[in-house]
Amino acid sequence: MTSSTDLRKTVESFWATAEDRNWTAFADTLAEDVVYTLPQTRERVSGRERYVEFNREYPGDWHLRIERIVAEPGQVVTWVHFTVGLDEMYAISFFTGDAEGRVLTVTDFWPEPYEPPVGREHLVERY
Amino acid sequence: MTSSTDLRKTVESFWATAEDRNWTAFADTLAEDVVYTLPQTRERVSGRERYVEFNREYPGDWHLRIERIVAEPGQVVTWVHFTVGLDEMYAISFFTGDAEGRVLTVTDFWPEPYEPPVGREHLVERY
Repeated sequence: MTSSTDLRKTVESFWATAEDRNWTAFADTLAEDVVYTLPQTRERVSGRERYVEFNREYPGDWHLRIERIVAEPGQVVTWVHFTVGLDEMYAISFFTGDAEGRVLTVTDFWPEPYEPPVGREHLVERY
Repeated sequence: MTSSTDLRKTVESFWATAEDRNWTAFADTLAEDVVYTLPQTRERVSGRERYVEFNREYPGDWHLRIERIVAEPGQVVTWVHFTVGLDEMYAISFFTGDAEGRVLTVTDFWPEPYEPPVGREHLVERY
């Protein structure tokens, strides 16, 4: 089994156990010194215990499905669709793994809808 | 050479030729029926000619560097850092390729900075 396969499976388990609120199994996907980074807010969470807690305490009855996953040895990216009641949003997450195929870093992006700038209507269609 | 290698190289060329404003070489990285999608604005640009034009007309003296790239056969994701004067932003782009290793679809996300919600200060540090 290649380390690419390992980390891809780990990341699939990461999301499945988060959706199930199975925080023990979720913790098993993480390296002890995992670092979670949110560049948009310039926030960082360091260490498995805190990062599990961050997710466990995350407010709202959120549910997720993986929209797309791209993996190579040691690196995985997911595009995940979240619903919280009627709200929908998506997260793009970059993962790196350690030698045991556990998650070592997670960097999340949460893009929000916005109005398109004027001047390109001759090239685009809205959907 | 695997198709993974092909599309990864194509995507590296896509960004290098965009930075160089070499629109002929940029067009060579694209399938004729390429589709570009911006989920945040629900905009879509269809076809090589329009998509080259969309990029060529894009306002501002923008410059880019690839921050991270993750590739598997037929799929590539890039995290690209843009500067426009003193402004900095980043784009996350999901690429798929055709059988010839050209870009068939591009889906872009442009996450913006935001203020973190209250209630998680006990778990995070700001950087």
